[in-house]
Amino acid sequence: MKNRSKIIHCSDYHWDGVETKQYKTEGTNFKDITRYSLLGESEDEWELNMQTRYFEVQPGGYSSLEYHRHPHSVVIIRGKGSMVLGNEVHEIHLHDVIFISPETLHQFHADKGEPLGFLCVVDRYRDKPGVPTEKQLDEWLGDCEARKKCRI
Amino acid sequence: MKNRSKIIHCSDYHWDGVETKQYKTEGTNFKDITRYSLLGESEDEWELNMQTRYFEVQPGGYSSLEYHRHPHSVVIIRGKGSMVLGNEVHEIHLHDVIFISPETLHQFHADKGEPLGFLCVVDRYRDKPGVPTEKQLDEWLGDCEARKKCRI
Repeated sequence: MKNRSKIIHCSDYHWDGVETKQYKTEGTNFKDITRYSLLGESEDEWELNMQTRYFEVQPGGYSSLEYHRHPHSVVIIRGKGSMVLGNEVHEIHLHDVIFISPETLHQFHADKGEPLGFLCVVDRYRDKPGVPTEKQLDEWLGDCEARKKCRI
Repeated sequence: MKNRSKIIHCSDYHWDGVETKQYKTEGTNFKDITRYSLLGESEDEWELNMQTRYFEVQPGGYSSLEYHRHPHSVVIIRGKGSMVLGNEVHEIHLHDVIFISPETLHQFHADKGEPLGFLCVVDRYRDKPGVPTEKQLDEWLGDCEARKKCRI
């Protein structure tokens, strides 16, 4: 019964042995957000075709506004907030599930005075995100609510 | 900005438009457990290589004791319990993260007087689980705590 299984215990949104990481090493179109790599980045877990990450956005913060070919599977596990998804803005709450389809613009906002934390599962091998310019946003979104919500 | 993105809102561990399903259509080695297919089973989400499911075990219940080639990425999002993982028994709590490596025997137990709910992400295309016999369990596990915990 050899196995490489593991349990990573959690206490108040911190996981044993999992460091709090910089959200991204490039770009500046995000604010007050941290990343935890939970599963799929260790050599021990090479059979996993997906990576499970936890992102936490502090009040007033937001993730990078971006789009890419790879889809996202997201589950909110802390707090509430809102998000830009394509040309719409949606309120998001605890345990809401979000499918972000390929090439869909998205940005998470912790705009309800509390942290917003979510699990995000992605393919291990995936494309790099694209980041829109203000001009592109104007072209794509016009003058809608989503355009006003975008931060880059 | 065409997209097939979606937000599935949740209220008290029930998701809008997601039905409570039978845990499995075959076998009897499980008790008081239900399944919710959250993402990756709909035709709209064909780019997802993984499926996100939520399982909820009622107090006294347990998932099927099984093993398979495909790995599992699990995050507990409700309550607490324990689990058989290979030849060990582990206590599991809210937000614990579990990697179940290939061919590792596993079974979740809601044995703390409250429901145990967890997200489980798997490859869309995967092998069918194997279910051990009592004789195999005796051979594999001997007389350890994990053997006593197994229900088939």
